[in-house]
Amino acid sequence: MVNIIHRIGIKASAAKVYKAISTIDGLANWWTEETTGDEKVEGKIEFTFRAETGDVKGKMVMEITELNNERNVRWRCIDGPEEWIDTDITFDLSEQDGQIIIIFGHRNWKEEIEFMAHCSTKWAVFLLSLREYVETGKGKPSP
Amino acid sequence: MVNIIHRIGIKASAAKVYKAISTIDGLANWWTEETTGDEKVEGKIEFTFRAETGDVKGKMVMEITELNNERNVRWRCIDGPEEWIDTDITFDLSEQDGQIIIIFGHRNWKEEIEFMAHCSTKWAVFLLSLREYVETGKGKPSP
Repeated sequence: MVNIIHRIGIKASAAKVYKAISTIDGLANWWTEETTGDEKVEGKIEFTFRAETGDVKGKMVMEITELNNERNVRWRCIDGPEEWIDTDITFDLSEQDGQIIIIFGHRNWKEEIEFMAHCSTKWAVFLLSLREYVETGKGKPSP
Repeated sequence: MVNIIHRIGIKASAAKVYKAISTIDGLANWWTEETTGDEKVEGKIEFTFRAETGDVKGKMVMEITELNNERNVRWRCIDGPEEWIDTDITFDLSEQDGQIIIIFGHRNWKEEIEFMAHCSTKWAVFLLSLREYVETGKGKPSP
């Protein structure tokens, strides 16, 4: 099993960062605008990505497996690209030097493939969007 | 051993992309402005990163272990942050749908630590800088 990991610092309260990664409204503001579902443990959240033409180009369903207020969020991917099924998405928060640090993981890929490299770069771009959303109120989610 | 991997597509010729990752001038335009050394196999390249105050905040020395024109570049880190020593940096080029794809790797970390997560995110940011430099002539290297 192999993992994508990232680390980003955000100048905001832990409450604000946690809200952005644990609520439908928060997620829709930095990952993809089309986010629906039930933001509770064992709830399922569906993320839809569209091309500029409006056609669906990707859809993922995550089951929330852990939610600890201002501490961490964990999802299991239960539907979406074949290589994503049964992978885990993790967000771990801590405070360092007056910032909230997120250690992000997209864990338990079966093997190190080109699509994983692509997703690693894209996750970095969306984590920058998350930071922008939390710090300024405006992120760059997939439209 | 664990790896950071990324994938990025650049709208330019393989020759132009290769030049940006294999020459001192190219590297200085997207990673760090302070890049010096010998751009040949077994040559050493020194990358210096400075804080806004002018103080050195990081320095890495890479030995070039592979150079294949328009195909790939490989370095071994021989000096720098302790966790980087003996890791390998790889750039593999291919053409797909009229773009040049770079599969980037920072390989053979001893373990998955927070500093590795930080470097993963930073590499994505610098690979976006590389793309901007190659496509527009102006990147965002460390000043």
